[in-house]
Amino acid sequence: LKANQKLRLSIWALTAYVLCACGTSSAQKTAGPLVRIAELEIDPAQLEAYKAALGEEIETSIRLEPGVLALYAVSLKEHPNQIRIFETYADQAAYEAHLQTSHFKKYKSETQSMVKSLKLIETDPILLGSKTGQH
Amino acid sequence: LKANQKLRLSIWALTAYVLCACGTSSAQKTAGPLVRIAELEIDPAQLEAYKAALGEEIETSIRLEPGVLALYAVSLKEHPNQIRIFETYADQAAYEAHLQTSHFKKYKSETQSMVKSLKLIETDPILLGSKTGQH
Repeated sequence: LKANQKLRLSIWALTAYVLCACGTSSAQKTAGPLVRIAELEIDPAQLEAYKAALGEEIETSIRLEPGVLALYAVSLKEHPNQIRIFETYADQAAYEAHLQTSHFKKYKSETQSMVKSLKLIETDPILLGSKTGQH
Repeated sequence: LKANQKLRLSIWALTAYVLCACGTSSAQKTAGPLVRIAELEIDPAQLEAYKAALGEEIETSIRLEPGVLALYAVSLKEHPNQIRIFETYADQAAYEAHLQTSHFKKYKSETQSMVKSLKLIETDPILLGSKTGQH
């Protein structure tokens, strides 16, 4: 992408994000963002392959899906095979749409043998503060 | 803030964030963002007061500190007294500066009696994907 294309893309993304943040200040709390924490343990022998597949899935989701607001993936310093993903979707419908995408299905099938355990933790957001908007 | 001030603030923040994201693609991986997960258990009788103090601390940190990129705070649906905070700082120096701010010190002293346990988990980012930039 050229610089001016990147800028336009950034401004579009920022606009979408700010609009979303405004929507969540309405009275309908259930219509707010859906935030989930995924806790995974990965087969050590396949850790690098897993990270590559996860990185590709995150990059594609953020780029193609307006309702995928943030996917922050980290490994724990003291237990590198333990992965945590902090997932923020615009709403429940955005999350369900994400599960149906070809890039998500590709990630799930590619990583099936790499993931030793997966725990999904549902949360209630208190405040999601970032440089571009707060819910 | 008026609308044009907000827009200027947003564009400034976006610029700062994108510059930071570019910086992290350099070879010096240790100069990248610092990401930490805080796991807290709160005294149930003081939960609402704790959430209010935390919300104020997050809002102030994001607004005043250029190096505090994101503070995402949630409670667990099945254990509402369990709080998770996903913290992203531009670098180690930004984190250390954060600890010295008056708003952080106020939060720590106000919430001292509310926090039953606190665990800080150091991480290595894999990919921090969001609508405004990726590390």
